[in-house]
Amino acid sequence: MNAFEETIIALATAQGVSAIAVIRLSGKTSIDIIQKVFKGKNLAQQPSHTIHFGTVYDGDKPIDEVLVSLFKEPHSFTKENSIEISCHGSPIIVKEIIKLLLKNGARLATPGEFTKRAFLNGRFDLAQAEAVADIINAETDNARQAALNQMRGGFSKEIQHLREELIHFASLIELELDFGEEDVEFAKREDLKKLIFRIQSFLHSLIQSFDQGNVIKNGIPTVIAGKPNAGKSTLLNALLNEEKAIVSEIPGTTRDVIEDEMILDGISFRFMDTAGLRETTDIVEAIGVARTRESLSKASLILYLFDLSKSTLEEIHLEENEIRSLNIPFLKVGNKIDKANPELLKLLEAENFILISASQKKNIQLLKDKILSQFQINEVKQGDVLVTNLRHFQNLSQTNESLNRVLAGMKKGITGDFLAMDIRQALHFLGEITGAVTTDDLLDNIFSKFCIGK
Amino acid sequence: MNAFEETIIALATAQGVSAIAVIRLSGKTSIDIIQKVFKGKNLAQQPSHTIHFGTVYDGDKPIDEVLVSLFKEPHSFTKENSIEISCHGSPIIVKEIIKLLLKNGARLATPGEFTKRAFLNGRFDLAQAEAVADIINAETDNARQAALNQMRGGFSKEIQHLREELIHFASLIELELDFGEEDVEFAKREDLKKLIFRIQSFLHSLIQSFDQGNVIKNGIPTVIAGKPNAGKSTLLNALLNEEKAIVSEIPGTTRDVIEDEMILDGISFRFMDTAGLRETTDIVEAIGVARTRESLSKASLILYLFDLSKSTLEEIHLEENEIRSLNIPFLKVGNKIDKANPELLKLLEAENFILISASQKKNIQLLKDKILSQFQINEVKQGDVLVTNLRHFQNLSQTNESLNRVLAGMKKGITGDFLAMDIRQALHFLGEITGAVTTDDLLDNIFSKFCIGK
Repeated sequence: MNAFEETIIALATAQGVSAIAVIRLSGKTSIDIIQKVFKGKNLAQQPSHTIHFGTVYDGDKPIDEVLVSLFKEPHSFTKENSIEISCHGSPIIVKEIIKLLLKNGARLATPGEFTKRAFLNGRFDLAQAEAVADIINAETDNARQAALNQMRGGFSKEIQHLREELIHFASLIELELDFGEEDVEFAKREDLKKLIFRIQSFLHSLIQSFDQGNVIKNGIPTVIAGKPNAGKSTLLNALLNEEKAIVSEIPGTTRDVIEDEMILDGISFRFMDTAGLRETTDIVEAIGVARTRESLSKASLILYLFDLSKSTLEEIHLEENEIRSLNIPFLKVGNKIDKANPELLKLLEAENFILISASQKKNIQLLKDKILSQFQINEVKQGDVLVTNLRHFQNLSQTNESLNRVLAGMKKGITGDFLAMDIRQALHFLGEITGAVTTDDLLDNIFSKFCIGK
Repeated sequence: MNAFEETIIALATAQGVSAIAVIRLSGKTSIDIIQKVFKGKNLAQQPSHTIHFGTVYDGDKPIDEVLVSLFKEPHSFTKENSIEISCHGSPIIVKEIIKLLLKNGARLATPGEFTKRAFLNGRFDLAQAEAVADIINAETDNARQAALNQMRGGFSKEIQHLREELIHFASLIELELDFGEEDVEFAKREDLKKLIFRIQSFLHSLIQSFDQGNVIKNGIPTVIAGKPNAGKSTLLNALLNEEKAIVSEIPGTTRDVIEDEMILDGISFRFMDTAGLRETTDIVEAIGVARTRESLSKASLILYLFDLSKSTLEEIHLEENEIRSLNIPFLKVGNKIDKANPELLKLLEAENFILISASQKKNIQLLKDKILSQFQINEVKQGDVLVTNLRHFQNLSQTNESLNRVLAGMKKGITGDFLAMDIRQALHFLGEITGAVTTDDLLDNIFSKFCIGK
């Protein structure tokens, strides 16, 4: 029996004491396995998508009263026979039931194995499968919507369609090669060029969407920088505490608090730990330090904090020049306005400094507004196609480069075999996005990042 | 519309990022409410216990692709129309869907409200409803089994049956009263006596089972005591760490670690914090301190730790006498055997001291075995009837006392009206167990301890 024929099992709901927990089984023998321990109806005789009450027994020991949901192949998520056991939400019961079913022929699912099977059984393509993980892990409504759009098809069909057209050309060119000496041209070069332009226009729009898609999925890496004692930690706390104080109005729906993350208007700002920069190091000196420079280079935004209680205008301008030399978008934030010279404040205001007091929580909202205004993220709507996945972005870019080589080759009039090679490469990169082309490594890499039970 | 007619909603699975989450709706309008936001089949036309794929929309914004399970009254847990929405396990999605359904006419369920409705709609009696919470919170397999037995009927039928017989007698006696002067006796006193004996025999077996039932449900309150530096914390850690090191072999089924709890052979030992006793106070002095004495008085077992590196046999005997004066079962544990006089060890071994080294983890398993041997807990089997609930125990005891008064009254030949009063009281206490007699306060008290979603 190969791995794919085995029936897999995992807890599908979150861990913890709760009203109910759902255990999921998928594979050819799912129904046989559950039937061995289930006293209730004969499940094999019941139609798909029906729910059955009964008791799970380990021998003559009753474990729990449960509801069993029945999904018969191919009408399940995995397209295999699947069972969902809804039991009381006790970790002890979940453990007993899973142990019992392992004993009866199931094996523990690996991370993402249900979704992997759904992909391998043709429920959806690879990009859609990846969106399943994204939707679960979405931290903002925009991220959820982008993932949902991708899960429901997104760019999948278009890629598949364009790839088929390109395959057609590749076949014609390879046919030419078979005729070797005869100098036939089955694949019209003009038509190929038109197709490549069409594909590239599509690729470009996707590649461009990644800037926004990446921000939506991964948030904006942000650094708070400034000289020692400029108030960096105080500001971070002022920005974050307000968030943490917002208690969810619906029980059970509060996210685990993610340290150093602030969600503003549906965008997540992730405050990076800049290896000492934030806490102790003088930025002017620190910029020389490779590690700090690397941290800073990953930031998309720097909140640079000036200590207005100590600095002169000249010193401030010096610092400003240093930070500008990094070539990363930054906001000039003047801190400790309660201890600053009013004349200085007036001058700085004219220079677009954001003037705050982190310790007194003054103008924190103003700062948030300014932070947001740096990024224009449109609300993601149904049907919007956004590339949010780095893997997709890289493959799209590589496809584009291969196609550029095809175009360049045609211009130089190179022979069909070289053209065919570049086209094949484009097809490979494109195919990996939707999983038309896969390797075990690629799949392992993708699904190992899923949670167990998905 | 009264509260009972409203449709309630809550997350039924544990909170957190996971493959799926289940949101539960119950009430007359459940199906109408979900239909307003669900694009898929017309659910009202579908049979009960069927599952339907579709998309939840907020206006024209798709929130998630879900499976909706349909339970039509009276074939649901609550006996009302009920819906379970299985969505992707993202807290954001759960929140959006609950918000959406609140907007469409549902209201948030209070803790235990689903089970309360199930009780009020006659799915099961009150003792069975309470078992639903017990099964979820069970921390050992014995506790799970005891709760399951209770949920499946337990003593409910027997109590109901005996109560009916008693009601019959009460009616007859009250009928006698109507005939006032005529000195008729509809209720044969001998038969009443026999019935009361039968009821009391049943009550006694239940009342006696509480000793074991309470231990199974609540564990054994245990105190580690001893002079300062006897090694109390070290021993506690040695006992607990081993437990914590046992990582569950099945992902997602590890219980949240409960501090200071050790599960041995299906029995939970809860180490009590004895307000300084464990850490800093000399027991010999501490016994005089009211607070410590109170802590100790709640313990069912004391592990008393002697520091063998410092004490002479005489000192040890003095301490032993002090601890014996508490009249609580205790184990004599000699610690630091690695630093003790071998002669002393020999003498103590003869006196049934358990000789250990907490820091070197020597003889910890031996100590665990000795702890276990203090308690004989039989494995709970299917059908075993155990009283695990303090409320039931109290009501059973009060019923018994009322019946004793009836018996005493008959012996004295008191009049029917007094007999009837005591019988009515017995009926009241008995009725509260199964919920044949309830008050809002009683129900609130019981269900407010449930989790939301159950």
